[in-house]
Amino acid sequence: MSSRNRFAPEVYIQGILSGDRILLSRAITLVESSLESDKVLAAAVVEGILPFTGKSIRIGITGVPGVGKSTFIESFGALLVEKGHKLAVLAIDPSSQQTKGSILGDKTRMETLARDQRAYIRPSPAGSTLGGVSAKTREAMLLCEAAGFDVIIIETVGVGQSEIAVKGMVDFFLLLMLAGAGDELQGIKKGIVEMCDALVINKADGEMAEAAKRARREYANALHLFPAKESFWFPQVKVCSGLTASGLPEIWEMIQEYRDKVQGNGFFDANRSQQRVNWMHEHIRFLLETTFYQHPLVQKSIKEMEIGVKNGIYSSIAKAKQLVELFYKSQSS
Amino acid sequence: MSSRNRFAPEVYIQGILSGDRILLSRAITLVESSLESDKVLAAAVVEGILPFTGKSIRIGITGVPGVGKSTFIESFGALLVEKGHKLAVLAIDPSSQQTKGSILGDKTRMETLARDQRAYIRPSPAGSTLGGVSAKTREAMLLCEAAGFDVIIIETVGVGQSEIAVKGMVDFFLLLMLAGAGDELQGIKKGIVEMCDALVINKADGEMAEAAKRARREYANALHLFPAKESFWFPQVKVCSGLTASGLPEIWEMIQEYRDKVQGNGFFDANRSQQRVNWMHEHIRFLLETTFYQHPLVQKSIKEMEIGVKNGIYSSIAKAKQLVELFYKSQSS
Repeated sequence: MSSRNRFAPEVYIQGILSGDRILLSRAITLVESSLESDKVLAAAVVEGILPFTGKSIRIGITGVPGVGKSTFIESFGALLVEKGHKLAVLAIDPSSQQTKGSILGDKTRMETLARDQRAYIRPSPAGSTLGGVSAKTREAMLLCEAAGFDVIIIETVGVGQSEIAVKGMVDFFLLLMLAGAGDELQGIKKGIVEMCDALVINKADGEMAEAAKRARREYANALHLFPAKESFWFPQVKVCSGLTASGLPEIWEMIQEYRDKVQGNGFFDANRSQQRVNWMHEHIRFLLETTFYQHPLVQKSIKEMEIGVKNGIYSSIAKAKQLVELFYKSQSS
Repeated sequence: MSSRNRFAPEVYIQGILSGDRILLSRAITLVESSLESDKVLAAAVVEGILPFTGKSIRIGITGVPGVGKSTFIESFGALLVEKGHKLAVLAIDPSSQQTKGSILGDKTRMETLARDQRAYIRPSPAGSTLGGVSAKTREAMLLCEAAGFDVIIIETVGVGQSEIAVKGMVDFFLLLMLAGAGDELQGIKKGIVEMCDALVINKADGEMAEAAKRARREYANALHLFPAKESFWFPQVKVCSGLTASGLPEIWEMIQEYRDKVQGNGFFDANRSQQRVNWMHEHIRFLLETTFYQHPLVQKSIKEMEIGVKNGIYSSIAKAKQLVELFYKSQSS
């Protein structure tokens, strides 16, 4: 997008606060932009709307591909907007490490919800670093809150670190599962189960309804083995069907029950406070890296150093040290 | 450890090059230390042994807990030392996010191999950041190579990002699996399967032998769906039993076949060259962060800023920016 399509920060801020969806979308595009001028503008917009954020319930949803996340969010979102809520759905979609392609692919996603004026759906761009993607998602979330959306769903595909990133920006974390799809509690999933406030067994319809109920009992038993949470919330196991919408009202009730409990015991605010601190540290790391790599002196030397390291002439550690020292010295000017 | 237990860099370097296991262990302890004086000493030792590294085959092994990694490595290691190899086993063990505890726990690990003079086993310390843990593992690997170990196994527990870290430091990446433990190719595992040079179905003994063979066919078919690798190596599926040692010689043959192929087509060197470049960038990020957080000015201000951000008085982004600018300005002195 060329710079003639840009407005002053106040235009975005006023537009967002008045619920203008076009200006909201444009502001999110700014936040996602890698242009230096856009970054400055985006920072001003985010700073401006910051006092008007925080009033939503932020829900993270994860689950392996095929678990039915899109159908679940489509049905759950329909329920929420019927109840009078304004829903924004953001997706974290880090590129596949190897193929660089989007994991979500060209799948048709949440078509009905996307057409509903009470809902706003925005996929996150695939980025080269998870840190970058999650910073952008977090800022998009704040923009949506300022625009008046009172329920935010942040969806992530199950690829390890992205769940941790999402956990770091939501109030409630929900894991979608399937009955009979193997021992989900073993191995790599254990860390994710530990982070969850609810396990929801999806596709509990037709022939799978019974299996889902059995799985629910098993998972409920397994969850007893996990240590108590800081929130004093005991993670629930629910069954539902994104397809038939059965079980969805109970899930929304559970989330409200959670909010009441943790707002009462102080965890809700404490958790958001800690998230803000962590966010500051993430942003520090991000700034340190970007200022380093964008520095003319670094850009001038890095290719030659890379070639030397590649050919084994220089040691990786020694050259890293030299480049960082060079960079720091240049900051004196 | 107090500083009176430290030697000059040359003492470590000469000791390691002569195969002294005690000095090797002490040097790895240095590399793992967070003391500033130890870091300087460790850097000198690693720089000193660097010309004597690179002559091993580096094998990464991953798999979910319960897949039998320890038993596999114990038996596979016994085979290797019998064939005249010197084997070092390093483990990457990032702490569990939530509980902060070690995933490996107090499990008895590789007792027989640990007593064998031809093998060297060293668990990595649990660290607060994966970046820190993997940097230390990589340096420990180089120290082991300089000490004459010609096969290095780097083991990781299956927790997402640590596999990516290991993939970034090995020549051959092997995923241990179990037959009938669910659809391992779905979801979160897909990214890991993409990285692998071999899938090995372990515990193919007794009643599980038949199931393992069936699983082998299924995985072999599934692997056909993955795009060709840069190495032009077609990932293999093998069955074995760590317990009975069946199938292990075939796995070693496969790894040698791999090495011959990729040394022939240039991928072996190209991959290591690229790893060195990535390592430089990782070390840059590490240096940027540590110099920032250890700076007196940052240490002085950060607590007050954290409290302000926590209480919602300051914005996370604004304070991050302010602190980074403060830090850069101070570099002029």
